[in-house]
Amino acid sequence: MKYLDEINDLVEALSKYPGIGKKTAERLAINTITKWDSVDIDSLINALKNVKTLKKCKCCGNITTNDICDICNTRDNKKIMVLEDVKDLFAIEKLETYDGVYHILNGVINYQAGITEADINLESLFNRAKEAEEIIIATNPSVEGEITAQYISEMLKNSGCRVSRIAYGLPVGGQLEYADSLTLSKALEGRRYIK
Amino acid sequence: MKYLDEINDLVEALSKYPGIGKKTAERLAINTITKWDSVDIDSLINALKNVKTLKKCKCCGNITTNDICDICNTRDNKKIMVLEDVKDLFAIEKLETYDGVYHILNGVINYQAGITEADINLESLFNRAKEAEEIIIATNPSVEGEITAQYISEMLKNSGCRVSRIAYGLPVGGQLEYADSLTLSKALEGRRYIK
Repeated sequence: MKYLDEINDLVEALSKYPGIGKKTAERLAINTITKWDSVDIDSLINALKNVKTLKKCKCCGNITTNDICDICNTRDNKKIMVLEDVKDLFAIEKLETYDGVYHILNGVINYQAGITEADINLESLFNRAKEAEEIIIATNPSVEGEITAQYISEMLKNSGCRVSRIAYGLPVGGQLEYADSLTLSKALEGRRYIK
Repeated sequence: MKYLDEINDLVEALSKYPGIGKKTAERLAINTITKWDSVDIDSLINALKNVKTLKKCKCCGNITTNDICDICNTRDNKKIMVLEDVKDLFAIEKLETYDGVYHILNGVINYQAGITEADINLESLFNRAKEAEEIIIATNPSVEGEITAQYISEMLKNSGCRVSRIAYGLPVGGQLEYADSLTLSKALEGRRYIK
């Protein structure tokens, strides 16, 4: 059985999204055709056209309409938070507490996958660090995130700025008895005296 | 924290898909912006433009480029399979064994949700049934699917055509011990003699 070309093309285009397999893409495509009206489809088309005009901030890698993003333009650039991905920037911004700027690595060092320090956006970080006072390394608490964090702190050893790493510990609302032993020992290691 | 309007619009458009919440839509939107190249976005835009030209077959409700779909035009219209949704048509067509035509109800009778027999595509089914020899009711094995099947068979009681309902039973590869008791009793009820 063959789908119409029109359906096939949409299925194929939608399957390019990570986490959307052929089956889901088929469901979405048929939903578009049978349940969406012309106005809905047009708003999706227009939204897609508009995001094509977005670019990466030349300074930090954030998504922006201009060459340099609003955050780089307006915030304290003495404090730089290093992130793996622009998705993480949105997560931090939602807190509405951080007032520094960012540096998006677009990946982490992963030798197994053939990604070395040369493949991620590190060179410009070391340049930016010359002017900075604090570098907060907020790569993910994974093996690769940790290796990348260690590499960065090693490279910045002789620089004038302070380097910090976000804390490991128990997630708020989590339960001690269900925490894995690595997290638990990191939580103990990172304990803070309150008296 | 506010996203750029361009990101927001895409998130909103993508969240219209069933099963895609705000969080997933954000992930997809950011993926589109950071990982897709212009060509990929254009193929999605074109695919969306093209599906806008598709319509419903005036006879069976299938998705088609013409007024009447290829299946209605070329197949044996003495045998009509009644389905809830066009998605089910694709599932049956994949088997490549069915040689009759279809009738898409676009829903099922669901009094709780306020959907009566007048709200689904039934009227034209009874017209088509006058010319048919067999009606195969393949609505889902749910309460609503079953009520709809019973309603259809009741309405066709005095017509000249045979009416059948797809079989209930254990799914192939399933295990008897894990089957729910309703399925199991239906499987026993529908047993076929092999000797």
